[in-house]
Amino acid sequence: MLDRVTTKDALPPEALDQIFRSARTYNAWTEGPIEDGVARALYDLLKWGPTSANCSPARFVFVRTPEGKAKLAELAMDMNRAKILAAPLTVIVGNDLDFAAKLPTLLPYAAETYQQYFSQPAVAEATAMRNGTLQGAYLIIAARALGLDCGPMSGFDNAGVDQAFFAGARIRSNFICSLGYGKPDSVFPRLPRLAFEEAARFA
Amino acid sequence: MLDRVTTKDALPPEALDQIFRSARTYNAWTEGPIEDGVARALYDLLKWGPTSANCSPARFVFVRTPEGKAKLAELAMDMNRAKILAAPLTVIVGNDLDFAAKLPTLLPYAAETYQQYFSQPAVAEATAMRNGTLQGAYLIIAARALGLDCGPMSGFDNAGVDQAFFAGARIRSNFICSLGYGKPDSVFPRLPRLAFEEAARFA
Repeated sequence: MLDRVTTKDALPPEALDQIFRSARTYNAWTEGPIEDGVARALYDLLKWGPTSANCSPARFVFVRTPEGKAKLAELAMDMNRAKILAAPLTVIVGNDLDFAAKLPTLLPYAAETYQQYFSQPAVAEATAMRNGTLQGAYLIIAARALGLDCGPMSGFDNAGVDQAFFAGARIRSNFICSLGYGKPDSVFPRLPRLAFEEAARFA
Repeated sequence: MLDRVTTKDALPPEALDQIFRSARTYNAWTEGPIEDGVARALYDLLKWGPTSANCSPARFVFVRTPEGKAKLAELAMDMNRAKILAAPLTVIVGNDLDFAAKLPTLLPYAAETYQQYFSQPAVAEATAMRNGTLQGAYLIIAARALGLDCGPMSGFDNAGVDQAFFAGARIRSNFICSLGYGKPDSVFPRLPRLAFEEAARFA
């Protein structure tokens, strides 16, 4: 009897295309708002991605009002400004350095032990950055899995965005990502990737 | 006429379950090796995930030999040691601080401009960590999309792993992730996640 008890099939090729192989970064968007329910459905999917000790340090601001977009665009690099103003929604992904405060909810059986561990500032900072970024990637893939297109960007004034959107909290902006239905002609030609041998090896 | 030109459907519910909602972190594995082709297929999928300026800084070591596993296990926290020894494969995800050297391949039309930008050590370090971690998350989701189970871990001696597996390169270990076919009874009870209101808001 085989010991392999949980073989799952790969997703069908079209699904792998949608979340990875033919998914592209968009730079312009079709008109029309993204409903609040879409942002909520997106969060309810990405939240299941794994983080260390379930610490879940990412915080998300879904920027959709004209005022919010203007404020964010002003803090972005020139090349990103028009994209933010045009996108129906741009989410700011931040890392909460005080994430350990929520461990009684997230890890009830070992909250105190881990809170003590994360009370070291360098550990908290590295953990927030690593796991918050994992959650940012879950957001990108979850959006694509829900049929949305993404335009992730890291060219903006991080300290300015923290001040404007996370004032009063120890949350550090990580990257931002426009969400919507992308215009196909806004996509750049596909860039090459490293071959397996350039990026990976066996040991 | 609607301006919405690229509506894609969401993946079917079973696919969303497989990559997010019912995917779990496994702590024990069924017998039997993972073929080299599986690691290559995994890389060929995750490599398409977006990174800033296509910089693709993640480097992967697929540890599968008894010697490799023993070396890695010895550098891991107690709670992770047996898991590494038992898993058919554990991948070390590292961030290459010299990632900009590959920009002539990855971003041929603007390699020099970005190499100049990334020549600032703090910029290179933040970019490597952010984008290398995104790629680490793409690995987790790509593995699940291919029907594999994951056991990500960050409890190990990073400097020791760098020395043992990335000697001679400026690659910094980020996290490690066992891959295989997980034993269902090795899964802990599902932990809660933060409600939308605790982790997100509109602006």
